[in-house]
Order: sequence, then structure tokens, then C-alpha cells
Amino acid sequence: MPTFPFTAIVAQDEMKLALLIAAVDPSVGGVLVFGDRGTGKSTAIRALAALLPSMKAVPGCPYACDPASPPQACPHCAKNPRPKKNVQVPVPVVDLPLGATEDRVVGALDLERALSLGEKAFEPGLLAKANRGFLYIDEVNLLEDHLVDLLLDVAASGVNTVEREGLSLRHPAKFVLVGSGNPEEGELRPQLLDRFGLACEVVTPTEIKTRIDVVRRRDAYERDPDAFCAAHAKSEKALQKKLTSARELLPSVDVPDAALESAARLCLALGTDGLRGELTLMRTARALAAFEGASTVTDEHLKRIAPSALRHRLRRNPLDESGSTARVTRAVAEVFPG
Amino acid sequence: MPTFPFTAIVAQDEMKLALLIAAVDPSVGGVLVFGDRGTGKSTAIRALAALLPSMKAVPGCPYACDPASPPQACPHCAKNPRPKKNVQVPVPVVDLPLGATEDRVVGALDLERALSLGEKAFEPGLLAKANRGFLYIDEVNLLEDHLVDLLLDVAASGVNTVEREGLSLRHPAKFVLVGSGNPEEGELRPQLLDRFGLACEVVTPTEIKTRIDVVRRRDAYERDPDAFCAAHAKSEKALQKKLTSARELLPSVDVPDAALESAARLCLALGTDGLRGELTLMRTARALAAFEGASTVTDEHLKRIAPSALRHRLRRNPLDESGSTARVTRAVAEVFPG
Amino acid sequence: MPTFPFTAIVAQDEMKLALLIAAVDPSVGGVLVFGDRGTGKSTAIRALAALLPSMKAVPGCPYACDPASPPQACPHCAKNPRPKKNVQVPVPVVDLPLGATEDRVVGALDLERALSLGEKAFEPGLLAKANRGFLYIDEVNLLEDHLVDLLLDVAASGVNTVEREGLSLRHPAKFVLVGSGNPEEGELRPQLLDRFGLACEVVTPTEIKTRIDVVRRRDAYERDPDAFCAAHAKSEKALQKKLTSARELLPSVDVPDAALESAARLCLALGTDGLRGELTLMRTARALAAFEGASTVTDEHLKRIAPSALRHRLRRNPLDESGSTARVTRAVAEVFPG
Amino acid sequence: MPTFPFTAIVAQDEMKLALLIAAVDPSVGGVLVFGDRGTGKSTAIRALAALLPSMKAVPGCPYACDPASPPQACPHCAKNPRPKKNVQVPVPVVDLPLGATEDRVVGALDLERALSLGEKAFEPGLLAKANRGFLYIDEVNLLEDHLVDLLLDVAASGVNTVEREGLSLRHPAKFVLVGSGNPEEGELRPQLLDRFGLACEVVTPTEIKTRIDVVRRRDAYERDPDAFCAAHAKSEKALQKKLTSARELLPSVDVPDAALESAARLCLALGTDGLRGELTLMRTARALAAFEGASTVTDEHLKRIAPSALRHRLRRNPLDESGSTARVTRAVAEVFPG
Amino acid sequence: MPTFPFTAIVAQDEMKLALLIAAVDPSVGGVLVFGDRGTGKSTAIRALAALLPSMKAVPGCPYACDPASPPQACPHCAKNPRPKKNVQVPVPVVDLPLGATEDRVVGALDLERALSLGEKAFEPGLLAKANRGFLYIDEVNLLEDHLVDLLLDVAASGVNTVEREGLSLRHPAKFVLVGSGNPEEGELRPQLLDRFGLACEVVTPTEIKTRIDVVRRRDAYERDPDAFCAAHAKSEKALQKKLTSARELLPSVDVPDAALESAARLCLALGTDGLRGELTLMRTARALAAFEGASTVTDEHLKRIAPSALRHRLRRNPLDESGSTARVTRAVAEVFPG
Amino acid sequence: MPTFPFTAIVAQDEMKLALLIAAVDPSVGGVLVFGDRGTGKSTAIRALAALLPSMKAVPGCPYACDPASPPQACPHCAKNPRPKKNVQVPVPVVDLPLGATEDRVVGALDLERALSLGEKAFEPGLLAKANRGFLYIDEVNLLEDHLVDLLLDVAASGVNTVEREGLSLRHPAKFVLVGSGNPEEGELRPQLLDRFGLACEVVTPTEIKTRIDVVRRRDAYERDPDAFCAAHAKSEKALQKKLTSARELLPSVDVPDAALESAARLCLALGTDGLRGELTLMRTARALAAFEGASTVTDEHLKRIAPSALRHRLRRNPLDESGSTARVTRAVAEVFPG
Repeated sequence: MPTFPFTAIVAQDEMKLALLIAAVDPSVGGVLVFGDRGTGKSTAIRALAALLPSMKAVPGCPYACDPASPPQACPHCAKNPRPKKNVQVPVPVVDLPLGATEDRVVGALDLERALSLGEKAFEPGLLAKANRGFLYIDEVNLLEDHLVDLLLDVAASGVNTVEREGLSLRHPAKFVLVGSGNPEEGELRPQLLDRFGLACEVVTPTEIKTRIDVVRRRDAYERDPDAFCAAHAKSEKALQKKLTSARELLPSVDVPDAALESAARLCLALGTDGLRGELTLMRTARALAAFEGASTVTDEHLKRIAPSALRHRLRRNPLDESGSTARVTRAVAEVFPG
Repeated sequence: MPTFPFTAIVAQDEMKLALLIAAVDPSVGGVLVFGDRGTGKSTAIRALAALLPSMKAVPGCPYACDPASPPQACPHCAKNPRPKKNVQVPVPVVDLPLGATEDRVVGALDLERALSLGEKAFEPGLLAKANRGFLYIDEVNLLEDHLVDLLLDVAASGVNTVEREGLSLRHPAKFVLVGSGNPEEGELRPQLLDRFGLACEVVTPTEIKTRIDVVRRRDAYERDPDAFCAAHAKSEKALQKKLTSARELLPSVDVPDAALESAARLCLALGTDGLRGELTLMRTARALAAFEGASTVTDEHLKRIAPSALRHRLRRNPLDESGSTARVTRAVAEVFPG
Repeated sequence: MPTFPFTAIVAQDEMKLALLIAAVDPSVGGVLVFGDRGTGKSTAIRALAALLPSMKAVPGCPYACDPASPPQACPHCAKNPRPKKNVQVPVPVVDLPLGATEDRVVGALDLERALSLGEKAFEPGLLAKANRGFLYIDEVNLLEDHLVDLLLDVAASGVNTVEREGLSLRHPAKFVLVGSGNPEEGELRPQLLDRFGLACEVVTPTEIKTRIDVVRRRDAYERDPDAFCAAHAKSEKALQKKLTSARELLPSVDVPDAALESAARLCLALGTDGLRGELTLMRTARALAAFEGASTVTDEHLKRIAPSALRHRLRRNPLDESGSTARVTRAVAEVFPG
Repeated sequence: MPTFPFTAIVAQDEMKLALLIAAVDPSVGGVLVFGDRGTGKSTAIRALAALLPSMKAVPGCPYACDPASPPQACPHCAKNPRPKKNVQVPVPVVDLPLGATEDRVVGALDLERALSLGEKAFEPGLLAKANRGFLYIDEVNLLEDHLVDLLLDVAASGVNTVEREGLSLRHPAKFVLVGSGNPEEGELRPQLLDRFGLACEVVTPTEIKTRIDVVRRRDAYERDPDAFCAAHAKSEKALQKKLTSARELLPSVDVPDAALESAARLCLALGTDGLRGELTLMRTARALAAFEGASTVTDEHLKRIAPSALRHRLRRNPLDESGSTARVTRAVAEVFPG
Repeated sequence: MPTFPFTAIVAQDEMKLALLIAAVDPSVGGVLVFGDRGTGKSTAIRALAALLPSMKAVPGCPYACDPASPPQACPHCAKNPRPKKNVQVPVPVVDLPLGATEDRVVGALDLERALSLGEKAFEPGLLAKANRGFLYIDEVNLLEDHLVDLLLDVAASGVNTVEREGLSLRHPAKFVLVGSGNPEEGELRPQLLDRFGLACEVVTPTEIKTRIDVVRRRDAYERDPDAFCAAHAKSEKALQKKLTSARELLPSVDVPDAALESAARLCLALGTDGLRGELTLMRTARALAAFEGASTVTDEHLKRIAPSALRHRLRRNPLDESGSTARVTRAVAEVFPG
Repeated sequence: MPTFPFTAIVAQDEMKLALLIAAVDPSVGGVLVFGDRGTGKSTAIRALAALLPSMKAVPGCPYACDPASPPQACPHCAKNPRPKKNVQVPVPVVDLPLGATEDRVVGALDLERALSLGEKAFEPGLLAKANRGFLYIDEVNLLEDHLVDLLLDVAASGVNTVEREGLSLRHPAKFVLVGSGNPEEGELRPQLLDRFGLACEVVTPTEIKTRIDVVRRRDAYERDPDAFCAAHAKSEKALQKKLTSARELLPSVDVPDAALESAARLCLALGTDGLRGELTLMRTARALAAFEGASTVTDEHLKRIAPSALRHRLRRNPLDESGSTARVTRAVAEVFPG
């Protein structure tokens, strides 16, 4: 069954933009999507991955190494000579299924080879599969803290360090971590929240027309997926092209000092800890500019991306009862009075 | 011992309708039955399965694949050429017995083959057995949340993703999840409740006549099951035929925009999260129409099915002490003033 | 050492009657005995079993199948041709010893055969041993809920469904579950209580004469068991004969509508959930009639059995502080004003 | 190092009498010793065992079966022909050491034979070792309830039923359970307390002379154990002889009805549950009579043994703040006004 | 690196005396050292062990048996003939390292021999290593109660009874248990506290001069350990000699009745449970006398040792808020008014 | 990718100085860095290690033994003759990754060799890898207490004592433990805090210019790491040289009595437990003097290092609400009034 097309998703603009930005520049960090149940969070992430152009990979490499990377990048390529021909593979989207055991996430001793050949080999896990793609966790707030922590660590460093069962190795694991859930229930520690690059809210649409539109599309898709996808093929193609251009443009986008100062003022006004807020603002504004074909980051880019980049970095202020989105909006209005 | 006939079940009309609708269109999602003990919940689900016509299956396939499905649908059919002849099998009803271990639910490494042949083969679990049928959990509120979550995930996607003990595979697991219990004890998280398609209440009948009727029938059945079933054979046959017609009619039943707007108004009035309420209303109303031989969904269908489709999606409203069924009924009266 | 004779048990008439009724018709469901410590609960159940006539069984069958049952009734008989000769075996009384592991209750993989022959065979557990007999649990309220639940499930269906360690099979496990304990400590969930057929109270006798009688008999028995048993051989024989007649008479005992209506009125007056109360009343009254050689159930039978059949099915009524036995007695007086 | 002699123990008369009574008639049930730390509880039990005459046993039998018992009494004797010659072995005193694992208590699969010979043999545990002797648990209130329960079960029935790890067997395990601790901390459930035959209190002596005596003897013993024991050899011999005579006399000691009536009155006055109180009173009074060479039980015997036999069977009476010993003493005064 | 010399330890006289007394007579029981962090507790115990003269041992015996002991003293010597030549070994000081597993403490099945030779051999643990020496536990209050209990049991009996993993043996394990920690945090149960022979307090010195002295010595030692030790060689030699004499003198030191009466009065005044207080007072006073070359125990010895021997045996007295040391001092003043 | 240069780190002077001091004299103990998230804590520690000159090591030794150390220093060198040629290796920085199992930290039985060769060999863990370098734990407050304790123990003694899985050995494990986290959340026990040598605070810079500087540098580094590092090569070289000189100078730096007295007065004024405060002050002041080329420790050195050396050793003072840094500063002002 073909995937529901990204461009057929109704409303939820903030979430869609955050995912697209992460696709342009994965270094902006993971994306946390929170809000009402039944609003198409998992549909969106799967749709995005299906949209992305396929990528070149070293054949046989369990980490799908880029043929342009140095051979010592992974334990497999370090041992095996690179084949002359490459393969083209889709961008991986790995689900962390409920009930997956930790050994399958991190990778573990290959029991079959240990028992039959008596040798200690590594069997790559989900983190290996997710390399160069996306790792999706539904209801991330139900995962144990230490596992979220581990996933954020690996996502941040791009490397999975395995020290278990007598195994000791490192392999590449660069991916965008996408988590969904409801952090307003307070279940993710601030320290974990802060390590997601972007956080966006989704809400149930309240327009009757929009709601009927969503239900109709979902029904049309389920009744005849192929026809439905064919009807959106053109818009999908166009978005894919826009993403490819953005990636090429990204390295040359300029971030002027004025933009950095604005970012710093915003973070100071909101009292975020550390400098992750500013780093994320700079990177996401740059990716947004690239996505829109602009060569320089402007205040406009910062203003648009500020809620997603900062709302999860605020300290609880007992004197300010307004929600975090409202607080960011207010700070944006102060810093950019225009 | 033959199963107690579905048409011999006295009263409990809401539950019986919900099960029949799920039999017409399994995509309406699981059915949650809650209420008094000793009201024949498990009898009904077993009776329904016995009533359904047998189905064609690929011989030897542990997932009972439909011969009309593509060969890559399951790990078994992907490897083995489809035999020329098919088999006819009953619709499976799988009980999740108390004490079943998680490896038997999800499936696990086949220890016998691992030990004797030294090969890592998958031994399908209950989720595989339930494919194309029903999975029944008595006292679902006593199951651990993560297991319910897993079952709902698999039921929703129709796919069981296994990542454990060095195994990594996916197989079809389309089934209607039927759970019984008493969620008013507040033991199922709202997030789980919301993922059941329909929820219906059962209560102990209070009419003396009805009660004697139930006891008499149960006693007659237990004393001479064959005679009892023979006495109901005709009504069973008729219902089976009605179900088969409904399934054929289903794809052509029309859902007019007015019906969708009514559904949206109902959900807005009740403030349900997300759009699962509307999706379920549309699907169950359509299945109900099909069951009754109607070619178009009308407000009447929506009104009848609304309590089962919505009562488990309400937010707790501290200002409104009335029960959830009463709240749905009130909203129905507002939206359909006629 | 021969068992203490059933007919030598002093007082405790309600418990003795409940056990005898379960012996006449095992389908009345399990028996729960609660009350003071040291009142001979376990003595009674062992005495009853010793009293019952031995039964015919298929030789070599680990489930002691009745030679009259169909061969597919158990995994053993399905594979092995039925021998021409049958064996005569005593009615089993299986103790669930403290510290028994779950695999021994349910049955498990036969490790010896797995290790030596490399084959996956089932080693039947206590549920298999209890087939066609009694399963006794002392201090049932100390067992974990999920195990009690499992035992009640198996007892109700007469089938043990095993889904563990790669095993997947069903075998007959029809037995009367007898539990002792003190549910007034509130440790059995209502949902478990309700699934026992009969519940009876035992109390320490307060008559000096009775007490001396109990102590004397216990001492006499311990000092010379053989002599003590010989002295009661005749009364044991008589009771055994009465039981055998009752079993033969049972199928023909009539339950008139008036009796069913009385049963329903009783349950309505007490507000029991579901219809298990009425079903149990009907069955136990019928068994009592059979035990006493009567061909029709009368109000008298219902009145005598009502406390045992209903006292554990009452909802806690905050306005009615009287004990459950008193409440049943009061309802009996209202429904049978005569 | 020879054991500290029983007759050299200073004071603590109640405890010493309770242990001696259990040695005369092990069927009185276990002995619970509670009270101050450092009062020689473990010294006493070890001393008693050393005092008892050695016993005849079947050579090679891991249960030290009595050669006079029937061969089917234990799994070992059932398989191996009884040797012509017997061995003489000391009465075993088995310590349940802290950190002993449950498999060592109950017995377990013999791993060595399972691994090397591939056969499933039973390796007897501490319960087997304790057969015909004593099992001592220091700080019994620190053991988990289920283990205490198991030990009391085995002690009461004299049989260890093993249902674990694929093993299913029974072997004799008749022993006197002796537990020490402080149940006034309320850590033993009433249901466990009630199953100990006797319960006695030990307190730190308050007489200077007695205290010096204890310390002197302990020091003398530790400095030269052999000399110390030699000095008490005669009194030990005398006590041993008295025990042997008591055992022989026991079966012929008469318990008149009047004594039983007194016992019943005592228990009624104290409101003990069940009839274990009376049974214990009868048995311990009889053993006491035998120990003192009397052929009939008198009120005097009952009065002396009543505190040990009853104090742990009282219900908490909120209106009676006096300790349990005081309550027993008061009841004794009422029942035996003389 | 040579050990820091015992005689170079500044201040902390009570702790030093307690350790020396335990070295003179290990039967005084374990030593508990509690108080401020960073006061050299672990330095002192290591220093003491280094000071003690080496001892003769049976070569190859894992328990370092004394060649003068009977061959049946340990499982090794019972099987192997005693070699003609003995070895000289240092007094062992065994650390219970954090993270040590219970099997390494108690000893366990020797896996290597089990796997390679298929035989069930015992691999001695830390308790075996500590035989005839010291076992040191830092932060004993962080250990689980049952492990402390086990260690105190073994220390008290001098025997390690192993009942685990199919092993069943006893071996000598006589050692002085030294624990450090802060029991004022209330984390050791009274029952455990009471089983330590001596308990002493250490506090941070408050004199500037002393503090500089400590820091200077520690620095000097760390910068040039050999020179530092050489500078203290003479005082170490002298102390070693004094210890050797004390051990020889010990058996002949007299404890007059007057001293025992004083000890009893002290314990009565303080209301300690049992007689462990008096036994310890007698033994430690005798060891102190021997250490100082006196042939008779005097009140002076008792007075000096009373705080260490008794402060951990006091019951909490709600009416007496003064610390336990103060209470002992007050009692000493009352009993020895002089 | 080359490491971010130490000299390119903006601000955070206290942390940088603490790390440099630990590099000059590892015996000052571990460094705890606490404060705001996202302030470059892990960057700094990795930068420091990259800066340090490489060191000579015994080829093949898993502990990277110094060729100048005695052969018995480690189990490997004790068995293998030292090769003639040495190797030059970088200073190790070992990360304790989240999810590392305890066996990988401490080292464990080498399963591969155990299974294939049947021999019990030790497989060194992270503690072995960290020998002579750094062990870094991010969010040390999330580690279990017993693991932190173990790491501090090993760090303090420089020796890893392994007692597990039948292994019993010791190997060198001298490293500087660096932990980051937020101990103000009160999650590290005082007893653990006190064992870190230095504790420093990091805060988010509040100057706009500094913030932009940090963000620019981080971006420049990530976009072209090689160019960025080249630009800082000279300053890195200079700092490396300064470190090397400091290490050579260290042994000859003088600590006058006046300095020790000042240190003692400071600790007395602050009421720190034990003498670890003074020892650390002496050592860190000496290392600071060496780092700055001074031959004598002065009050100035003490004053500068006092906050890092003492702030984590203060007792909670309910009457003094000021933070620990403020309390140290106040005490410094009192003790050094000048």
C-alpha cells in the first residue's frame, strides 16, 4: 500500500514545516510533536520519508554507509573493500515498536553466530537501521528516561557506542529523532526536552470544512490508495525538488551578526538555559531560508521559527501563568517591535 | 461441543450490533465491551465467530494468507510458491489466555529449530493466529498498558513488527480486537480507550421474564448442545446471509457531505480530541447502512451508532456530572433536533 | 496413613453440604470456604475425595481421560490408539503446594526431553493431574490474582490453554476448584469471588461438648488411624452410595418455572451483577434435590442453598451494615414469605 | 568443639521446657521463641539436639529413614533394597542459614547429573536433611511469609511436596520447626503464629548473680570446652534418660474428659480461633505428664503449659490492653479457680 | 607502595584502641567505626593489618589453615595430607569492594571446573580469604541488611555454611569484621548493631596544629612512602612486640567477681538487652589488661572500655535526649562513684 | 573530525582551570562540573584530552602501562616480558555511555574465550581503558549511587579490584573522574560529593557579545573543522607546553606552614567534615602554583582555588540561606582579611 502523500495532509502547518526543516538540515536536532490524539502525527513522518529522494549506499553495509564517506566510518566498511557499484536505497524511517527490547535498539551479540561458530559478532540494531534517516517514537513520554536519553545521545553525536555483553564498538547512527507525545503532562524531564531541536504543537482542527476534508481524504486514500496517490504525484514531485534545492543552497546561506544578536536577545528575554536555543535558532532559520530559496537569514525567518525552536526550553515561571507558546510570541514581539 | 448460537443470545442489543458492524467492516477498529460481570460477553464473541462464513487461505501459511493477496504479504508466502489449491478455514477467534507470555503473543525465536538445526527461525505467535479474525481479551483492564498498546498498534496497522531476540521481521496481523472489562474503574488510559473503535455497555437485565429466558437457554444448551443448536440453525443461517450481503454492499454505500457535517458537529459538541471520532462515525454508520441494505448513510444511522462510537472519547468534564452515555445522547439531540 | 473419614467430621454442616453438592454436579463451579483458622477445612476436602468411587480411565493418559470420551479430547489420546483395557483410578485431589512454580501448575516444556532428544514435548502440570477431580488451594487469598484468575478460567472452561515457551496446546482440565481463606479480609477481588459457585462459612464451634468431640476424634485418629477408619467404614459406604444415586438422578430432576422465578426474585432483591447468581441457584438446588432423591426442585431447596450460592455476590451497600449472610437470609424471608 | 550442655544453661525455664516437650512429642508442632537479643536462644536449641540419643537410619538414604518405616516412605528407599545393616546417626539440627536459596531449602534438580548424564534427578535440600530432627530459623520474622508458610506446611504434614523445574515428588520431612525472633514487632501474620505449637518468651535476667553466672559459664566454656562439658556430663546423661522414658510412657498417658473440658473452657474464655489451641493443650499437657512420669493429665499440667500453648493465639482485643501472657494467666485463674 | 604506618596516625585514640583490642582477642567481636567522613578510618584498619606479625599456614590451603589445627577443620585439609613444610603468610585484610557479588563473598560453584571437567567444585570466596584476618566494609550501612546479617553470623560462628547452587559445605571463616559508616543515620537495625563487639566514634580534629600535622604526614607519605615508613619503623616494631606479648598474656589474665558485678551493674543501669554487653565488657577489659601487661582486670579497665563496648546497645529512651556516649559516661559515673 | 580546541572555548574560566589543575596533578581527585544545560561541559573535557601530550606505553598491554612502572603493576605485564620497544599513545578519554552494563565498566569474564577455549580469562572494561587518562560521565547524578561509589573508589585508589563471576584480580586504573550534572537537585549523596576533588559551576553567559562569539565559533567549527583547528593550533601548542612545564615543576613546589594554617582556618570556618578539604586545598594550590610557574604556594593561590575545592563540602546550614559559593567566598574574606 503506498504511503499517504505528504502534500495531501490537511492543516498542521507548524508540524509540517518542522519536519521539512529537519529534512533540509538534520543537524537542527530531533523534532518533538505534541498535542491531541488522532491528529495524524505518525502519518506525517511516514509521508515525509516517502517523499525524500533515495540515496546512494555501500552494498552490503548494514549501516547503509554513503559511498563518499571514508572506509573507517563503520566496522563493516573498515573490514570489507568498497564494491565498485553502489546501490540506491530509500531514506529509512525506523519505528521503535512498543515491546522492542533494548538489545534490538542498540544492537547486541549475534547469538546465532556465537552459538554455531563460537565467535563474538555484533548484530546491528534499530539505531544502525536508522542511520541517515529517521527514528520515530510514538508516545515518547512513555519510554523510560534512560532510553530517551540514550537515543538523544546517539542522535546528537551521530555515533552509537556499544559497550555490552563483551562487545565494544562504535558505528555511525546519524538520524533525525522524531518523537510524539504530550509533554504538557510533564512526563519528559526538562533536560530531555531541551535536547530536541524543535517542538511543535498539533491541535484538532475546529473548522467543520477542514474536518470533513481530513475525513474525506483519509477515506478516499483507504478505499483506493493508488488513485489517491496518483492525484497528488505532481505536488509531491514539486516538494521533493524544493527540498533538493534547499539542501544544495544551505551551505551558502549567510547568517548576519544582526540575526545572531536578535537570536541572543530572544533567548535572554526568555531566560533559556545554555546556548542551545541560539544554536537551534540560527540553524533552523538558515534551513528555512534555504527552503525558501533565500540567501540570507532575516528577522522574518527567526520570527517564524522561534516558537518551534524555543517553546520547550522555557523555565517554569510561577509569576507568568501564560503558556509557553504565548511567552515565546510575547518575547518575539518585544525583540522585533516592528 | 458446538458453540452457543449468536441468535440465541437474549437482549444485549448494543453489544450484538457492535460486533456485527465489526464483522461487516473490520476497519472500524476494536470493540470494547464493558459492564456487569456474568452478562455473556465472552459467549457473544465466540458465537459471532462461529457464525461467520469460512474463508479461503493459502495452505501451510501460518498467517492464513488470502490467496488473492500478493505473495510478498507475509514471510512465508514470500519464500514459498503459492500452491494451486486453496484451503477453506474458519474465521479464527484467538483468546489471549491469562498467563500467556509475551513471546507467545508476538511470536519468538523457534527454540526447537535453534537448538536442533542451529538456525534462527521465527515461530509465529497469537497475533499471527488471529490474522483475518478476532483477538479476544477478557478483563482487558488487567493487562499491562504496554501490552494493550502493542495489541492496539498491531490491530491498527494490520502488521506485527517483531524486533526481539535477534529477529527482525513483519507479518500481517489484521484482526478485530475485542476487549471486555470495566473501564469505568478508570484503569485504561484515555489514550488506549480512544483507540478502540466502538465501546458498548452491557447490563444485567432486570425483567424477570428475560432473566428466566437467559437461564433456561443456558441450561438447555448445556444439557443438550446439539439439540439446542439445531433449533437455532435457521436463524443463524439467515444472519450469516445478511452479513455476507452487507460486506458486498459496503464499498458502494454513499456517505453524503451532510452526514459528515453532522458527524463533525457531534464531535465538536462533545469536544473529542482529534478526528478519530468522526472517522469511526463515518465507517460504522456506513457499515450499519450496509448491514441493513441501505445504499446511503442517513442521520438515522449516525444517531443509532453515536453512543457506541463516541462514549469512550469524552474528556472528563468536572461541570457535567452526567455519565458519558447521557452526554452523547444529549449531544445527539442537539445536533439532530428533529 | 488412611484419610480421616468424611462422616467423622463433627459439625460444619454448610461446608460439608457444599462439597457434596459439588461432587454431585461439578458444573456448579468452585467452592470457597472461608472462616476461622483450625476448623478442619483441608481435612474435609481430602476426606470427600477419599469417599468418592474410583473412576475408569484410559491407561497411560496423563489427563486420565474417560474411556467414553472422544479420542480427540486430549493431545495424548489424539495420538495414541485407545488400549482395549481400561484402568480404575481414584478421584484425584491435587494440592497447589506453596512454592509451586507457575510452570508446574500450567505444565511446561519437558526439559529432559528437550535436552536429551532435542524435541519440544509438553510436560503436564497440576492442572492436568486435577482433571476429573479436585484442585485444592489453601489460603487462596494469598495467591496472586492472576493465578487465581487463571485457575478459575480453566475450571470454568474445563480446558487448559497453554501458550508459553513455544508450546501451544489445549488439554482437558475439568475439576472442582476448592479454595479456603478469609475473603472478609477483602483480599479477593469481587470479580474473582463471583466466579466461585458456592461460598460457605466455617466457624469454631462454641459448644464444649462439640469441641471435646472434635479433639477426641482427631486424637483417636492420629493414635490409631486404621482402627478409627474401620469404625466409620459403614457410614462412609452409605454416603458413597447416596452420591452415586444422586449423580444418576440428576439429569432427570425438573426445575419448574416457579423455581426459576423465585431465584430471579432473590437475585433482584439482592442486586447481584449478571446472571451467575441465578444459574448457580438453579444448578445447586437441582443437585441438592438429586442428593435427597427428589425429582423436582422446590422453594425449600432454593431457600437452603441460597446463602452458599449468593453471599459472595453482593455489592457493598453502605446503608446496610449487616453481614452478607444476614442480607441473604433477609431476602430469602422476603421472597419466600411462607 | 563440643556443644554447650543443655543442663548448663542458666534460667530461661519456659524455653527449656518447651523444647523438651517438643523432643518428647514432636507432633505438638513447632516452637517459637521470642524476646530479648543475646539470651541464648540458639545455644539452647543446639544443646538440646546434642543431648538427644542417636537414632537408627537406613544407610545411604538421604532422608535418614527409620529402618522400621515402610520402604515406600521415601523415593530413595522405594528404589533401593534396604541394606541388612543399619547405621546410627545423631539427631539432625539443620540451620536455615541466611542467604540460603529456596532451591536448597526445598531441594532442586541435580544440575551436575542433569548436565553430565542428561537425567533429571532430585537433589535433596535442607528439608530432607532435617527429617526426624530439628529445623532452626533465627529471626524467623525476617523470612518472607511464603517461606515460613511453606516450612510450617511441611512441618505440619511431615511431607515435602516438590513441584518445580519439572520435578514432581514427595519425601518425608518430619521435623520440629524452631523459630526465634520478636513477633511483638508484629511481623508474623496471625495465620502463621497460630501454626506454631508453642510460643515462649525469653527475657534478660535481672539478678546480678544470675547474670554473673551466665557470663562465667559462657567464658569457662569458651576457654576450655572439653573440661566444661565433662563437668556437666552427668546431668546431661540424667536428662537424656528422662527424655527416653518420657517417650516410652507417652502413648499410655491418659487424658480424662475433665482435662479436655478445662482446655475447651480456657480456649473459649480467650476466644481463640479454631481448635488448634485445644489440640495443642491436650498434646503438650500429655507430653509434660510423660516427661514427669505421670500417667494421667491433670489440671496442674494444663495450667503450667497454658501460656506457651495459647499466648500466640489471642485476637487483639482493643478493650484489653494487657499483654497476651497476662491475659492467658487471667483466663487460667478463672477456669481453675482453685 | 608500603602501607601508612599505624603509629603515624594522628589522634583518633578510641578507634586505635578498639582495633588493637580486637587484634589481641578477636573473640571480642567486630568493630564498628562511625563518624565524620575523611577521618582516616580505612587507613587505620589497613595499617593495623600491616603491623601484625605474619602467621604460619598450610601451603595450598585456600583457607590458610593453621598447621596446628586438626585436618578436618576445612574441606581442603580434610582431603589433602598436610605437607611437612609450612608457609609464613601475612594477616589477610579483605576489602568487601563495592559491586562484589554475593557469590564472590560466600563462595560459589567453580564454573570453570563445572564447564570443563563437569565436576561440582567449590570456589572459595572473600569469607575464605578473610579467615584468620580482617574483613573490612566501608559504609556498612549501605549494605543490605541480609548481607550484614550473614557476615555477622559467619564472624560470630567462625564458620561459613554454604547452601547454594547444589553446594553444601562448611569452611572456617574466623575474622574480625570491621565496618565503617554512620549508624546515627539510623540505617543499621538495632539487632545488627548489637552484634558488633565494639563501636567507636571518630570526629574531625579541631586543633589547627593537629590538622596541619595530619595533612603534612599524609603529604609526606604520598610523596615518598619509603622514607616515611622508615621513619616510623621503630615505633611500629615496638607496638608489634607489645601486641605479641599481650596475646601470650591473655589466657592468664584474671577477671575477679567484683569486675563482673560492676559490668552487670553497668548493663542493668543502661538497660541493655541480653547479656552481650557484659560478655563484651569482660572480654575487652581482659584484652585491654593484657595489652597493658596487667594480670588482673580492674574497674579502671572497665571504665575505659565501657563506651566502646556499650554505646551501641542502648534502647532509645524518649525521656533521655542525651547521646548514647553521654548516657554510658553517666552510667559509668554512677556505678563507679569513685 | 578533529576535536574542538580547548583554547577556543569562550568563557567558563573556573571549569577550564579545574580541568587544567587535574591535568597537572591527577591526585587532586575527580572534577565535578555542574550547572546549566548546553554550556559546553562535554566539549571542554574532550578538548583537554586532545591537548595533552601523548604518552609512552607498553605495547599490547590492555592497561597501557607506563614502561617505567614495575612489571608486577598489572596482570598483563606480570605475565608477559616487557618488549624492548615502546609505543606512543594518546591520553585516553573514556565516556561512560548510557546503557553501558556494569560488566563492561568493571571488566568481566571473556565469554568468547570461556566458550571456545574453556578458560576463565578477564576481559578488561572501561576502567582499564581509562587508566592514565580521563573517565567522563555526563549527568553523573542519573547514575546509580553504587556505581558512582565504585568509580570514586577506583579513582581514589588507582586500582580496580574485580570480584565477580569467579574472577578475582586487581589492575591499575588511575584516572581523573570527570562528572557533569546538577547536584543542586540534591541527587548526589553528600558522601559522594565530598569525594570529588574539585567542583565547579558553569552558567550561561549573559553578555550578548559572548553569546554570539560562542555560537559563531561553534558554527565555524562545524562547517569546517580543519580550518577552525588550524586557526587555534598555535595557542594549543603554547598551552600544552605550559602544562608540561607545570608537571615538571610540581614536585619542587613548596607549601609553607602558613599556607597549611590558612587552609585549616578556612575549613574550620566552614565546618567541613574530615580533612579532605585541607588535603585538596593543599594539592590544588600546589598544582596551581606549578601551572603558573611559581615555586611556593601563597595565600593568593589558596584564595583562587578555594571555591572549587570546598563548595561541595559544606553542611547544609539552616540559618544561612546563602548559596555554597557565597559561603566559601565569605569564609575566604574572613580568613584572608587583606
